[in-house]
Formats: sequence, structure tokens, C-alpha cells
Amino acid sequence: LALAVGLTKSTVSLLVRELLAEGWLIEHEVVATGELGRRPTPLFIDPSRLLLLGAEVGVAEIRVVATTLTGVVLARKDLSFGAAMSLTGCVASLSAAVQELHQELAGDDRRILGMGVGLPGGVDEASGVLRFSPNLGWHDVPFGALLAEQLRGTPLAGVPLYVQNEADVAALGELEFTVARQADPLLYLSINQGVGAGVIVGERLLTGARGFAGEVGHMVLEWAGPRCTCGRQGCAEALISPRAMLGDSGPLPGPASGSPVGELLRRLDAGDAATAKAVNKAGKYLGVLLQNLATAYDPACIVVGGSCLQLGDALLQPALETLRTYAAAAQLEPPVVQISSFGADAVAVGAAALARYRLTRPLIAPGAQHNNLPKGT
Amino acid sequence: LALAVGLTKSTVSLLVRELLAEGWLIEHEVVATGELGRRPTPLFIDPSRLLLLGAEVGVAEIRVVATTLTGVVLARKDLSFGAAMSLTGCVASLSAAVQELHQELAGDDRRILGMGVGLPGGVDEASGVLRFSPNLGWHDVPFGALLAEQLRGTPLAGVPLYVQNEADVAALGELEFTVARQADPLLYLSINQGVGAGVIVGERLLTGARGFAGEVGHMVLEWAGPRCTCGRQGCAEALISPRAMLGDSGPLPGPASGSPVGELLRRLDAGDAATAKAVNKAGKYLGVLLQNLATAYDPACIVVGGSCLQLGDALLQPALETLRTYAAAAQLEPPVVQISSFGADAVAVGAAALARYRLTRPLIAPGAQHNNLPKGT
Repeated sequence: LALAVGLTKSTVSLLVRELLAEGWLIEHEVVATGELGRRPTPLFIDPSRLLLLGAEVGVAEIRVVATTLTGVVLARKDLSFGAAMSLTGCVASLSAAVQELHQELAGDDRRILGMGVGLPGGVDEASGVLRFSPNLGWHDVPFGALLAEQLRGTPLAGVPLYVQNEADVAALGELEFTVARQADPLLYLSINQGVGAGVIVGERLLTGARGFAGEVGHMVLEWAGPRCTCGRQGCAEALISPRAMLGDSGPLPGPASGSPVGELLRRLDAGDAATAKAVNKAGKYLGVLLQNLATAYDPACIVVGGSCLQLGDALLQPALETLRTYAAAAQLEPPVVQISSFGADAVAVGAAALARYRLTRPLIAPGAQHNNLPKGT
Repeated sequence: LALAVGLTKSTVSLLVRELLAEGWLIEHEVVATGELGRRPTPLFIDPSRLLLLGAEVGVAEIRVVATTLTGVVLARKDLSFGAAMSLTGCVASLSAAVQELHQELAGDDRRILGMGVGLPGGVDEASGVLRFSPNLGWHDVPFGALLAEQLRGTPLAGVPLYVQNEADVAALGELEFTVARQADPLLYLSINQGVGAGVIVGERLLTGARGFAGEVGHMVLEWAGPRCTCGRQGCAEALISPRAMLGDSGPLPGPASGSPVGELLRRLDAGDAATAKAVNKAGKYLGVLLQNLATAYDPACIVVGGSCLQLGDALLQPALETLRTYAAAAQLEPPVVQISSFGADAVAVGAAALARYRLTRPLIAPGAQHNNLPKGT
């Protein structure tokens, strides 16, 4: 350890003792290695004392998780709303849910290190403002400030709070908590009612000028295509989302039929040919989107996640086939596509990862590298 | 100056004297400022003694420029080939052209600091390999090594040499030599026979896992659209490039009719309605591409350049109109679109900028930021 960080053994011991005391690290039992000399004491990230909270705000549901520093989910809460979720209702419910989790888990030797929220739209992280969420119909909502206000006077009041786009936090979940961190650039494509991507380049989240980078659900794939919730025509989301598939497969179900993905699954299970065809068509357009993401970012890996993954091969097989066909036509290798290992927790766990990311990595501001001319060559 | 860099006045004086001696800086005459105290000596980047070389390798032509450290073009050479340019012919001609420029300009107190080359395809800059150029039909060509080999034994043998994609270098030209450096992310969209983008985020070039990031000419805009030179169908390039416009406007001209853009201009001037319609259609698809670039990267500014800009409003007006329509539908501001101030020199000057960029900025390797947990909060 001393060798790796370039400090003396005694300084490392001192720092390790501090990290042990603060709950970052834990010592495991000394094990016989068979080698000569004093047996080393193995150190691990302490999974029990410092916790992270992460929340996913969906279109009609909220999921909150508490995780260890390494992303293991310790507890989970789900809240469902009707079709429409009001902003004040959302903030109040979210605040109540994280407090419940905190009460269940936190104690004398356990504390919440930070909290993250993933929102379905473009977010300006610095100000905590949700710029635009087509599926919620929210414009310029100061979500971070509203939640902080709601948490005032509670035990969670002082906990660092971060908000970001849902696909962005899920991408950070892959970066912080999985082996995918070696893949650069790393993309996470979120396929829910909304479609969006989180992009990580050089271990930094690509956010863009206004927080809209990666809003690839609104990449236009068809001139004069179907109308999207955002107002444009022919967006990827309007061709791929569950509602698009339902629209292509027959009359829209009433509110009693459950989630759009659930309804699609029910129809597929019933052997409905029109639904199978609609899902296949959406899969092909998903393949076009994946191909376009590959040309835009040249990712080492694209992780896909979101509720539509429940459709399984019915959606993914035509998508990957389309992607392979494009790559073969250009004599290129297709990009690596993986399914998120966090399943339905991807955004909530990712939101916890956002807190870890911001608390443990130095913030390099864009433009921090100045154009200093050196002395010469 | 001492205040700005945080060094003592005497150290700054020493460093400035060194920079003056090496040709980086120049002192101008002392001017009366009307203020009290010793009049300050204004310092400027020396435009005369340290030069950069930049080359654009096109599909059937090469342009080489020599510039000052601030991107002012001092000399220029153009080479035209028939429709097909061989790799060996290209390297030999390029080598001869840069040597001619060097001979014309370099002297006892003038030296070439570095040289850059912009190539029409995906480039792995570290190895100097051109991965794939659909329009040249070249695959995995070690262009940097071939050119270095050709320059062996010449006065340019020791000069640092860099190769990169043409749109990438043009983006660096905007970053290094214009005020657009304040725009982050900054995109340069190159619209020639090939279409591609250079993307700069936080003053760093986005290159991707294999050097293909920004190859947005091969973003698919139309399912089962026209066949592209890359082999795919429906790529932006197959809908926007001059050859696509000519194909839509009537029978292809023979080789005697000059460049495709020249032929389009001739037909537009002659009032050909089919050509006007074809250029308008390409402009609309250019608008779709610009809209998709905006969703992918959320740029603060998109600079457009390339030979197609000669078509002027016939191409740009429908493009910008399409972009505005999409933005208005989503109730968002359209991204800022600017025409490159370097005109037809954009890639060659950008290649010179690549040399300045690599020689004067510290290379931050992707992944250099490690996940070091700090001592606590």
C-alpha cells in the first residue's frame, strides 16, 4: 500500500487507522498466506458503517435504496402513483421515503454519507435544476432546492445531496460499482417510457452546456416520424418507448391495465402477432439508435437498462441484429453491448453512485486546463 | 503577469527573457498609457520566428499551410489529383509540399515547431494509424509512420508530427486560434464529400475507444435510406454529401466537370430546379444531423465548415430552419451555429493547431483521475 501511494509505511498506517476509525475501511482476520514475514492484515472497504442513499424518480413511481459504499443494496422502498405525479407530492413522498430508510438503518455507528437523485430529464447539476422532462411535463424545476427544503429540520438535513439525469446516474453506477469502469468511453442507455444516455469519458460525466448531453431519446431517426412527447417528430423515444410499441400494436389500454411494459408482456405472452411485430420494429429502431451512439461517441461499452429490458429478446434480438448488420456493412466491429447488472435498481443505485462520485473524486472543472505555453521543446 | 501566474517579478522577468530568446514572445514598443510609474513593456506571441505546418489530406487534393503560433497563414500550397489518390503518391506529394514550404520560410531565426495532418477518416492518434476512410477506401494505414519515413534525412525529420481526423483538427483550430474556445462543448462539423465532427469537451478532444468518436456522417438518419460509401444505408453522409445532391439532381457528370460542389454551383447558377430541390433536401437532412448533434453533445457552439459551405444559403437556410423547427417543438433554444472563420483553410490550419495543442498542453490520459478515497468529509 505504501509503495502504491508513494508514502512511508508509518504514514500509511496512520491514515489507515483514521480511515478505520471513520468507517471507510475494515480489517479482516489475518489469514495464513504461506509466505515468510509478518502476515499482512487485509483491508476492505467497510460495507457496514458509511451508507449512501439513492433515489429514482420515474414518471409514475419512485424507488429509494440505501447502499454500502460499494453499491450493495441494504434496503429498498417503492412508491407508486397514478398516471400523474405532482411535483409537491413527489418531493414530499421522496423526502418521507429517505427518512424512513434512514431511520431503519442509521444508528450510532452508521451514518449516511450522501444522497443522490436520478430524474427523468435534463438536469443542471450545479444548480440542482431539472431543465426539462418531457414525460413529467416539468420545466425548470429547482428539484434539489425543493428536496433540501423538505428535509430541513430532519436528521438528513446536513447530508450532501446531488441530483442528476437518470441515465447519467446509472452510468455512474456502472463506473463506480462495476468492472465496466475500465471501458472508456462508457455509455449507459436507459430504455423506459423515456429514453436517454449517460456518457462517461475519462471517468468524467459528459453533461454538455445545459445538462442535456446524452438526451439521445430525442435523436431524430425518421424524418416526419411519429410525434414525440417532447413535441418533435421522429425521435428515437417515439419509435422505441413502450407507449410507441403499444400504439403500434393496437388500441391503447385503459389505465386499469397496469404499466405499458406489463401490458406489452401480457400481450406477447398471449401470442398477439401485432404486438410481436410492434416490439420487433421498436427493436430495429433501438438498433439504429445504438449504431448512432456508436458513431457519435465510439464507446468501449454500451450498458443497456430500464423497464423495457423486461421484454427480453423480443426487443434486444432485433436491436443487436440491426447493430451487427450496420457494423458488418462498414467492415467494423460492433460495439460491446451489455445488460446492466443492477436490473431495476440501476437508476436508484446509480443515484447512490452519484453521491460517492461527487464526494470522493476531485472535481475538475471544464476549462481548468489552461493554455500555458511551456518554455520550449 | 507575476500576479497572474503566482511567481515573483524577477522569476517572471527571467522566464520572459528565455521565451523572448527562444522566439515564443516578442516585445512591442513602449507606449504611453497615461498612468504613473514605469511604463510596462507589452508582450505578444511572436508571430515570426516559431512556425507550425498543417496539412489537409482530402479525397482528391492536398492543402498544406505554414502558420504563425496564433494560426495566421503565412504560406499555402495546393495539390490536386485525379479522382483517385494512391497512398504512396499522397505521402510523397505531402512530404514534398511541406519541404517546399519549409525551404521558403525557415531560416536562421525561424524554425518549424511542429507539424499536423488532418485525414478524412477515423484516426488512432497515438499510433498515427488511419483506421478507416470510406471516401479514400483506406483501412488501417500507418500514415504517421509512412510520412515520418518519407521525411527521414530531410530538415523536417526531427519535427514533431501529429495526425488526426480532419474534423477533429478543425475543431482544435477553433479551440486554439479563435474566441470559440470559450464555448464548451465545442463542435466542428465538416461537410465535404465526407461528413464528420470534431468534439471538444473541457478543452479535450473526444476521440473515443478507437478514434471514431464524432464520425457522425455515419449516423443513420433514414431506415433503409440510400447506400453510403461506408457500406451502411441511410447515413447522414449519403443524404447530405455533394455526391448525394448530384445524384438527386440528375445524371452524374463525367470526370471533366470538376468537383461535385463546383458542378452543383454551376447547376444552381443555371437555375436548374431539380438541383435546387436536391440541395434543399440535403439541407433539411443537415438540419436533422445538427439537431441530433445537439441532443448527443449539448454543445455551446457548432462551427460548420467544409467545401459544401460554398453552396451558401441554398444549403444552410433549410438546415437552420429545420434545426429551429425541432428546437421550437421542444420549447428549447436551438444551439448556436457558426461558419468557420478559416473558410477553406479550416482543416489545414486546424492541423497546425493540432501540433500547437499537443506541444503546449499537458496530456491528461483518460483514466488518470483515480478513485482515491479521501480521508473523510
